[in-house]
Amino acid sequence: MAAPTSETCAAVERSIRRRVPPLLTDLYQFTMAYAYWRAGRHNEPAVFELFFRSNPFGGGFSLFTGLHDCLLFLRNFQFTDEDVEYLRSVLPPGSDPAFFSYLRELDSSGVTVRSVPEGAVVFARVPLMEVSGPLAVVQLLETSLLCLVNYASLVCSNAARFRLAAGWRRSLVEMGLRRAQGPDGGLSASRYSYMGGFDMTSNVLAGYLFGIPVAGTMAHSYVTSFSCLEEVWPQSLVPADGGSGGSDPVDLLSLSRDWLGRVCELLGAEPGAAHEGELAAFLSYAIAFPRNFLPVIDSYSVASSGLVNFCAVALSLCDLHYQPLGVRLDSGDLCRQSLEVRRVFRACGDGFSVPAFHSLIIVGTNGITEQSIQELSKKENEIDAVGVGTHLVTCSQQPSLGCVYKLVEVRGSPKMKMTEDPEKSTVPGKKAVYRLLDAQGQPFLDLLCLSEEPAPLVGVALRLRQEVFSQGQITHPLRTAAEVRESVQSSLKALPPRHKRLKDPDMYTVAVSEKLHAVLKEVRRSGSKLNDKIPVDRGDRTAQNDVGLNHV
Amino acid sequence: MAAPTSETCAAVERSIRRRVPPLLTDLYQFTMAYAYWRAGRHNEPAVFELFFRSNPFGGGFSLFTGLHDCLLFLRNFQFTDEDVEYLRSVLPPGSDPAFFSYLRELDSSGVTVRSVPEGAVVFARVPLMEVSGPLAVVQLLETSLLCLVNYASLVCSNAARFRLAAGWRRSLVEMGLRRAQGPDGGLSASRYSYMGGFDMTSNVLAGYLFGIPVAGTMAHSYVTSFSCLEEVWPQSLVPADGGSGGSDPVDLLSLSRDWLGRVCELLGAEPGAAHEGELAAFLSYAIAFPRNFLPVIDSYSVASSGLVNFCAVALSLCDLHYQPLGVRLDSGDLCRQSLEVRRVFRACGDGFSVPAFHSLIIVGTNGITEQSIQELSKKENEIDAVGVGTHLVTCSQQPSLGCVYKLVEVRGSPKMKMTEDPEKSTVPGKKAVYRLLDAQGQPFLDLLCLSEEPAPLVGVALRLRQEVFSQGQITHPLRTAAEVRESVQSSLKALPPRHKRLKDPDMYTVAVSEKLHAVLKEVRRSGSKLNDKIPVDRGDRTAQNDVGLNHV
Repeated sequence: MAAPTSETCAAVERSIRRRVPPLLTDLYQFTMAYAYWRAGRHNEPAVFELFFRSNPFGGGFSLFTGLHDCLLFLRNFQFTDEDVEYLRSVLPPGSDPAFFSYLRELDSSGVTVRSVPEGAVVFARVPLMEVSGPLAVVQLLETSLLCLVNYASLVCSNAARFRLAAGWRRSLVEMGLRRAQGPDGGLSASRYSYMGGFDMTSNVLAGYLFGIPVAGTMAHSYVTSFSCLEEVWPQSLVPADGGSGGSDPVDLLSLSRDWLGRVCELLGAEPGAAHEGELAAFLSYAIAFPRNFLPVIDSYSVASSGLVNFCAVALSLCDLHYQPLGVRLDSGDLCRQSLEVRRVFRACGDGFSVPAFHSLIIVGTNGITEQSIQELSKKENEIDAVGVGTHLVTCSQQPSLGCVYKLVEVRGSPKMKMTEDPEKSTVPGKKAVYRLLDAQGQPFLDLLCLSEEPAPLVGVALRLRQEVFSQGQITHPLRTAAEVRESVQSSLKALPPRHKRLKDPDMYTVAVSEKLHAVLKEVRRSGSKLNDKIPVDRGDRTAQNDVGLNHV
Repeated sequence: MAAPTSETCAAVERSIRRRVPPLLTDLYQFTMAYAYWRAGRHNEPAVFELFFRSNPFGGGFSLFTGLHDCLLFLRNFQFTDEDVEYLRSVLPPGSDPAFFSYLRELDSSGVTVRSVPEGAVVFARVPLMEVSGPLAVVQLLETSLLCLVNYASLVCSNAARFRLAAGWRRSLVEMGLRRAQGPDGGLSASRYSYMGGFDMTSNVLAGYLFGIPVAGTMAHSYVTSFSCLEEVWPQSLVPADGGSGGSDPVDLLSLSRDWLGRVCELLGAEPGAAHEGELAAFLSYAIAFPRNFLPVIDSYSVASSGLVNFCAVALSLCDLHYQPLGVRLDSGDLCRQSLEVRRVFRACGDGFSVPAFHSLIIVGTNGITEQSIQELSKKENEIDAVGVGTHLVTCSQQPSLGCVYKLVEVRGSPKMKMTEDPEKSTVPGKKAVYRLLDAQGQPFLDLLCLSEEPAPLVGVALRLRQEVFSQGQITHPLRTAAEVRESVQSSLKALPPRHKRLKDPDMYTVAVSEKLHAVLKEVRRSGSKLNDKIPVDRGDRTAQNDVGLNHV
């Protein structure tokens, strides 16, 4: 794997500027900004929080990702002349022209972001990011930040579940680009699936931009494009360095034909049933990539054609001291077929005394879901690596996370939305968020407090969020995909298994402090006029926080 | 609505180059291209077909979109030095350096594409695009073309179903950007939802790039950011031109306070229950946008606060000869609330003799699904416009279409994949596709023939595909989103209602001609070596095609 270079880092930043220009937002952000500006309120200090309301996929946790791109987006937040001209054309005629000059000058220099680190295990209703700054500016950021966090966190969480289902014995390859929701859906899926615990991607651009290991050998079209052995050219291959066969090219075609006869004899198979075009395709590929021979063997029939053709070519490669890698199965009952494939590998390995055949791998890639991965742990099979596409990248179990971005404070006053759905109401006020660890270092509670409260005195209390952006600058090191991938795994490892069960997990506790609860009750109880008159005790910094278990 | 300018067209093309660079593909496309090149087969003429295997969402049809971007992608298909250097680093060491020079020189000048027009109603198993050209090049195009067609067609089809469910009496607004699968998922959703029959989008960038009408007024955060009437500034508004009240500014705050009293009296409501901050927010917005007053009225309580505050401000606007637009409901039981809201509008309109109150609109926007839209036709309600987000843009009913791209011919020989799943096998050979219309001009059958067969003599037979790309050039006019939107509706209009039922539709017939069926049987029956020896009768151009109903 190549680590991202400064060149690719610059490419990622350019790509963010282009994929997420400040016009990629909802129109109402601009109408609201105008109304704030018109009322002279645009520079009032305001605080928004980003969170989601329930853990995805019926699970007990989520992973937080997308921060890296949020930070690049913030650093580049600025409108061009063309942007502003377009906005002028869509805001109602008669809007004050001075507003558009104001927009043209806007940037993120007044914005501060405190955030959970990228790759952390997180839970519903915990404010993951706190975005504070001038009211109009932090309002304008809403849609873009949500768009960058929502899918990133969703697909990373999905990948982590696939990894939990698969365990670490099997390799996981993401290969969903063609089925993703748009080109960037595919690129994001590759990036965040890797962070979530996948090993490789088929997506070349993701490899280039994020240093993710890339994988892939051939499609069925390659196999079916061949008809007969005359199409194999060149037909010979120089043995691997250090082989005892010398360095003269060997006729691999004749060798494989011989091996095909011997394999069929050993297995009691019918040589005429092996597709000649398929043998030609395998030979041609093996000659091109003698060290990377891993064909797809189900273009015609696995048992009567693909498998014997593979063995014939792989045994020939072994003769020339190359190590064939294995096979890919892409249709039918993967578990059942993998047993038969392994049986044949063992038979050939033993029958022809070729030890290399005992380390061949079997890759399965047919409409894999979280459930089918789980079944691999229960059903007998010999699958070493799994390629996952559609269900991973589209998160078909639940294709949206539902992050929201809510106003919690303006000019120091706590703000709250109530609405007709009680579960859509928000927790007012600027907060501190603590994660409490038990004696074993395992998290057992996330506690939301007023920002001015002292840290709780129960167990070890970690501040969950750090300042990551201030005065137009990223104030926390940007991390590579590989670094975030490590955080994901260490963060998941610390989480007790009862919260990691894929079905019916125990719910992790998220609570608010007594003081925050008092504010919440007060704002909720308040009728008209009260929203800015809640007595928030901002002076009492010495009182002990007794961790009242007020569930959010 | 602004039509896209040449400036935005250029911006769209730049955006495609950036979003879909030729590295955005699967690694195996390059390993296969290398193996073809190594065997001297890279320039063999080959034909691929793009199709999907079943109609999405359990429906009877799909819509084909994404072609515009495919054509721009093809026109720009070229590798940079950086691309090639990266590929060199990920292909196995020892790969022939001449291959990378070959890649650097590649372009789409040898590629020809015949395609169904963008916006056409299409059906499962009909080859929508035929991509022919040098084997290695058309293979390299696979993933990118699939990625561009798959989600575009899916979300357009989804939008068309929402439109069928809603009928044309209600406006449909797409507002899913924040919940979409990545920034481009959001942009594509806005664009193709519009093509599928939505009227507007909240997405400003989609408006800018594609000329889609944009909509939006305010979020809850705007409402909750206000606490008291002192925050309203300015408090006065100049009456609309032509108003009899003259052109001196009127104190809208006092006027609205008076109206609030009168509204509460009329409705028997408690004035003290109306949230003062909400009234301040509505006033401030109305003063900023007196001709675009459409607030969200559920930040606290619709009945006791939002509705009376709206009426007070809207009646004040009417006094000043402005026409308020209406309200948005974003939580709770939308149908039930809309009845109450309409009742109040009528009561005010009649009680205060304000005719403008009889044309106010009610917008509903709370987790709308296809099913909830359908319910609007059955349940009593007064909702005039619906905003749809998550379920539209993520296509939560079925988040992937499953288009595939299959090799059907190399050097004039038909090719086919069989695999262990019979339903994954392909129909070999280069084809012509006809859509047969009955006497009423309604399509009743899509017929796949050998490309050399004469047109069928049953009914009116339209060639479904046209050449759209040849010799590196787009040979068919690119169409705007608005033009495709019209095609979608006329194409859907021609389709008999039995195929448009959202549940349990009658399946439209897709058949293969007798001659194509013979080829299919022959290739399927063939064992080894036979793939290139199928007798395709390419001379018999006069024989009548008798439309054998061989279902695909």
